[in-house]
Amino acid sequence: MKIKIIVPITTKEFEESTREEVIKFASPGTEMSVEALQYGTASIESSYDEVLNGPGIIKMAEKAQTEGFDGVFIDCMGDPALDAVREKLEIPVVGPARASMIYAADLAHRFSVVTVLENVVVLVENIALLLGLRDKLASVRHVNIPVLALTDIKKLTETLIEESLRAIKEDGAHAIILGCTGMLGVADDLSQALKNNGYDIPVIYPVAVSIKYLETLISLKLKQSKKTYLSPSEKERNIWEVI
Amino acid sequence: MKIKIIVPITTKEFEESTREEVIKFASPGTEMSVEALQYGTASIESSYDEVLNGPGIIKMAEKAQTEGFDGVFIDCMGDPALDAVREKLEIPVVGPARASMIYAADLAHRFSVVTVLENVVVLVENIALLLGLRDKLASVRHVNIPVLALTDIKKLTETLIEESLRAIKEDGAHAIILGCTGMLGVADDLSQALKNNGYDIPVIYPVAVSIKYLETLISLKLKQSKKTYLSPSEKERNIWEVI
Amino acid sequence: MKIKIIVPITTKEFEESTREEVIKFASPGTEMSVEALQYGTASIESSYDEVLNGPGIIKMAEKAQTEGFDGVFIDCMGDPALDAVREKLEIPVVGPARASMIYAADLAHRFSVVTVLENVVVLVENIALLLGLRDKLASVRHVNIPVLALTDIKKLTETLIEESLRAIKEDGAHAIILGCTGMLGVADDLSQALKNNGYDIPVIYPVAVSIKYLETLISLKLKQSKKTYLSPSEKERNIWEVI
Amino acid sequence: MKIKIIVPITTKEFEESTREEVIKFASPGTEMSVEALQYGTASIESSYDEVLNGPGIIKMAEKAQTEGFDGVFIDCMGDPALDAVREKLEIPVVGPARASMIYAADLAHRFSVVTVLENVVVLVENIALLLGLRDKLASVRHVNIPVLALTDIKKLTETLIEESLRAIKEDGAHAIILGCTGMLGVADDLSQALKNNGYDIPVIYPVAVSIKYLETLISLKLKQSKKTYLSPSEKERNIWEVI
Amino acid sequence: MKIKIIVPITTKEFEESTREEVIKFASPGTEMSVEALQYGTASIESSYDEVLNGPGIIKMAEKAQTEGFDGVFIDCMGDPALDAVREKLEIPVVGPARASMIYAADLAHRFSVVTVLENVVVLVENIALLLGLRDKLASVRHVNIPVLALTDIKKLTETLIEESLRAIKEDGAHAIILGCTGMLGVADDLSQALKNNGYDIPVIYPVAVSIKYLETLISLKLKQSKKTYLSPSEKERNIWEVI
Amino acid sequence: MKIKIIVPITTKEFEESTREEVIKFASPGTEMSVEALQYGTASIESSYDEVLNGPGIIKMAEKAQTEGFDGVFIDCMGDPALDAVREKLEIPVVGPARASMIYAADLAHRFSVVTVLENVVVLVENIALLLGLRDKLASVRHVNIPVLALTDIKKLTETLIEESLRAIKEDGAHAIILGCTGMLGVADDLSQALKNNGYDIPVIYPVAVSIKYLETLISLKLKQSKKTYLSPSEKERNIWEVI
Repeated sequence: MKIKIIVPITTKEFEESTREEVIKFASPGTEMSVEALQYGTASIESSYDEVLNGPGIIKMAEKAQTEGFDGVFIDCMGDPALDAVREKLEIPVVGPARASMIYAADLAHRFSVVTVLENVVVLVENIALLLGLRDKLASVRHVNIPVLALTDIKKLTETLIEESLRAIKEDGAHAIILGCTGMLGVADDLSQALKNNGYDIPVIYPVAVSIKYLETLISLKLKQSKKTYLSPSEKERNIWEVI
Repeated sequence: MKIKIIVPITTKEFEESTREEVIKFASPGTEMSVEALQYGTASIESSYDEVLNGPGIIKMAEKAQTEGFDGVFIDCMGDPALDAVREKLEIPVVGPARASMIYAADLAHRFSVVTVLENVVVLVENIALLLGLRDKLASVRHVNIPVLALTDIKKLTETLIEESLRAIKEDGAHAIILGCTGMLGVADDLSQALKNNGYDIPVIYPVAVSIKYLETLISLKLKQSKKTYLSPSEKERNIWEVI
Repeated sequence: MKIKIIVPITTKEFEESTREEVIKFASPGTEMSVEALQYGTASIESSYDEVLNGPGIIKMAEKAQTEGFDGVFIDCMGDPALDAVREKLEIPVVGPARASMIYAADLAHRFSVVTVLENVVVLVENIALLLGLRDKLASVRHVNIPVLALTDIKKLTETLIEESLRAIKEDGAHAIILGCTGMLGVADDLSQALKNNGYDIPVIYPVAVSIKYLETLISLKLKQSKKTYLSPSEKERNIWEVI
Repeated sequence: MKIKIIVPITTKEFEESTREEVIKFASPGTEMSVEALQYGTASIESSYDEVLNGPGIIKMAEKAQTEGFDGVFIDCMGDPALDAVREKLEIPVVGPARASMIYAADLAHRFSVVTVLENVVVLVENIALLLGLRDKLASVRHVNIPVLALTDIKKLTETLIEESLRAIKEDGAHAIILGCTGMLGVADDLSQALKNNGYDIPVIYPVAVSIKYLETLISLKLKQSKKTYLSPSEKERNIWEVI
Repeated sequence: MKIKIIVPITTKEFEESTREEVIKFASPGTEMSVEALQYGTASIESSYDEVLNGPGIIKMAEKAQTEGFDGVFIDCMGDPALDAVREKLEIPVVGPARASMIYAADLAHRFSVVTVLENVVVLVENIALLLGLRDKLASVRHVNIPVLALTDIKKLTETLIEESLRAIKEDGAHAIILGCTGMLGVADDLSQALKNNGYDIPVIYPVAVSIKYLETLISLKLKQSKKTYLSPSEKERNIWEVI
Repeated sequence: MKIKIIVPITTKEFEESTREEVIKFASPGTEMSVEALQYGTASIESSYDEVLNGPGIIKMAEKAQTEGFDGVFIDCMGDPALDAVREKLEIPVVGPARASMIYAADLAHRFSVVTVLENVVVLVENIALLLGLRDKLASVRHVNIPVLALTDIKKLTETLIEESLRAIKEDGAHAIILGCTGMLGVADDLSQALKNNGYDIPVIYPVAVSIKYLETLISLKLKQSKKTYLSPSEKERNIWEVI
């Protein structure tokens, strides 16, 4: 099967590091194409960024379907433009926030998300609310590191451990979801650190979970409901002239 | 006070009819500027349309603030790009779906929204959910008329009455919200028809309510919370080169 | 338009100070009549007080409708007798708790109310619950000052600031509602103090919001739903002989 | 133990029939005093009626405590003035709507209430909401018979059966609560009729359940929480001069 | 009436101490038979223990019905096998967790449960959720004492007081439910200690409440709804060969 | 990886047909062992059946872990003994009801489950409630065919189509979950029939989804949270002597 992974920002370094990362989780026979946006914002840390990058995400997703991909993964924890793409496409489309939350909901009584900045907290809470899982969300915490500074793995790991322990002790979390798909290469260390503190709980790594989930959907011929995500009716849409 | 009314689609006829309509609800001293988008979709009837028009809405809203407007009204019942604009701007920004729903929540035990197409139903339910008012929403019904065909006032009115009566009798609605800001000039007839059927209940006309609500916010120096809608951090955003 | 403002207690000083306050928020052309109860309790700080003052509120409201007023505002954050008056009257009736909460619900992800005494906390929580907004209510805090001692503006302001900061930092509030209509002349100072602490969030002043909201209802010919607030049927009611 | 049963209306016939009814459910050693109001409305079928009768209920309840009663039962399904009386008294106070709903919540997945008039429907829904049991309430239906006409037992029974069957078949009710304490002498026939239709489900008779519940509270020295129902602070309350 | 009290564990000491305890709450005319399991776990502190003891509980309950008992009380705060027994039996069956929670829900705005071990916390939360009372549950705390060590009354009482005070001050509890039916002889001391700290709130003792509740159900001929707890259909069930 | 599939009933025919079915969904490298219970009920259609089969399920699951299996799948839509097994084991354990519901929650706005008998309806609703997904559950319908009669594929398929169409049209379902793992070989026909009726929506086949989900958990080294499912403490448990 062929999977399109949209890196919905313009920072080329993320395209490269994502490409190296996702290959680790591909099943035999899965081909993956990773591509960042041409126009848009350098990272996504607000609804403002999500809206600005929306048309680019749609354009790339539509192209992927035309080119014969079997599924699309929008690689950002805000699940930007997910509803719009699910409406337009006939192949399964996966967002990492929703994918991570449903897994966490089954594995734990309550879960917390540890994201990048305070700006993102309400966005994540709203995704849980729309998914029907608000009561399972113990808290959304943040490491206070912008996306583009996540490359400082040491600092990121330390802060993730700190905030995850707070989520467990103060907020009652029984599982932790990494709150940004740019938090690469830290899930195992976080998981081990929590175990060392006596907490044998799931650490959900959205990139890994999303790829496996999308593979499952494709292999079982499942996709988003077209009663929820109805195909947009035909009309004049001249946005493509300019973007 | 000066209010910017963004008609977030490209259909110029709607810009004109909206201009004629909104003036009816302006208080003395309120100036209003009504403007449609240059690039985008002819109407909004899906998340797909909302995402495509998002950047244009943001651009126009930012310009309004720069030009000294005191508040912005995004004239579409999907409240497209509302969160993004509220993050970016320091002046109050109002969306008609949220404005209508809060009024209905106070005036009635439960309310229904009668919108245009089935495609919009889930979008409206999700707005109620995010606003915390899902339990007050009796139902979302639709007249099955596309936005661009709403100009057939007779057919619109008949179907609105029919669906509103169903909402009351079958879904338990105690108030009706018109589900599209393009439903111009029908609120009074609907209200009268319901009264004739024995139902003396609020018919919420989103355009009217939103203007009054925005005037109130401006006059009381209120705006969206900047803890909910944090200002986006600085970063490279090259979308403006193309749109 | 003519608005009746019922001060639903017997303390004449509040009638006077309220009269001076409300005039600040009246639009041109709005006449306001402010009147306190003849029989009842000196202030309202419990369900007990609300029930005792209920018949007096109803009596005054019915008189207002008979005298041709266009709307009624019951000036107490317990919204005492609001449902009863809404059932009986055919003109719009507004309570400040509900009015403030719907505005806060739109402007902020979550809000807190800072009221007078612990006795009132559950009453306010229950109003939010009945309004459908329990999940938007971050907390109800109190300044521990009885209504009749609110005239010590300095102490009130200091405690309001303190409790509002706690609501923001500890409870996650993104907006603050003043929890008693007797908290006159402190909203601006509280708002400024929060800004000085880095919190640019709405401070909802119930008196101001309620007047503007009632003006809007009257101007748009909206009132409470008569499916929710059905007119009481005719029967023997000899309570009027004694009160 | 001595129980005070307040019939919170002025219709003397109800005082008498209630007196005959409640004695059937008294345990050995339980004395009961049944008393109707002197001033107030002939029946309670709205929030309007509840508010008008509130002060009389409080007055009678306070007297009962002074006279050494061990508990108070306010005999009306609107639970009028219940919160106020619970605040003021140090002995347990029971309302039939809350008592019935908690029993039904344990015995059945969902329950319906069949009340007298449409006017009461929202009142009952709101009691369930405040009690935390909204999700257990399948529906509130009504027989469309005013309280003062409930003496036509035959018509009442027929309509109760009809509406209860609808509640079961259409609304998913697994238990039925009689929705007015004036529905005397019909519970057994309703229960039998439902069994004859194949439905072996609880029919909750509020008068019976409330008396047993109050006896339990008294015997176990339990009463309402004084953290929820705080004692009203001292202040001038001149309502007693007139009522 | 004859009540069967199932002590759903194999520890004989609990059978004896329970027998001495329950007799204190029996009404005149109530006979009680207390019996522990023959096979199973020494105590119940997990879902694992509940499942292992399930068949034994069912077997004993079925025997009780055959022997002519009028009701069954499963004496463990996990309400183990309650749904199964309610399905199978035609006489009322009561679990102490549900019985305690419904009483607390009426008497207090919110309540906490103080149980034995952390292992039980989620079990109790889930009972509240299934009962529809999750929003009334302030918290579930634990004294960190295994069931079989509850006989150290002094230590138990001290820790109960400590955790109950935390539940009140930190979690907003307005009532306390003892979280294990093995917490014998401590309710009064806890209640007094809370009063001494200024908290006049209900302390719900599940054993007492359950017996009174079951007596009420039997006397009013009420039992679990057979629409919720449908009688299991006939089929081969060879489990009885071995247990 | 090695997966243990527990058929938690004693009907050997189901063991065989399940073995043939599950192999279709195994990834390369996945070994599967399918085994039915020795003692217990012939099928599971009530909480009564679930409790009776609980100890046998636990025993088989513990043996699987001892024998080196990497994960366990309890093949029944009641998810019987799932919590208990998750507590006891250190390898991932999956139940088909929870697995199906989380997938449906992501793919559709609301979903319905179509199960075998009315007896199972409340059980399934309660699983959704505990999983936090009650608001996503449109309805639970049943085909009124006992588990042991599901082998009549033609009748099953016809009734499934009928009830699924009702779920969509009357209850607002946007996805359908097969409500019994014994509904083998009908998912594709149901899916096609719904498409022929114009509904391109997910038909979730629990057996398939659960195997894929369990494979994902194992491959990503994820399992149930040990803060939610704490390991049972050591104590005397003599149940094993008899079962």
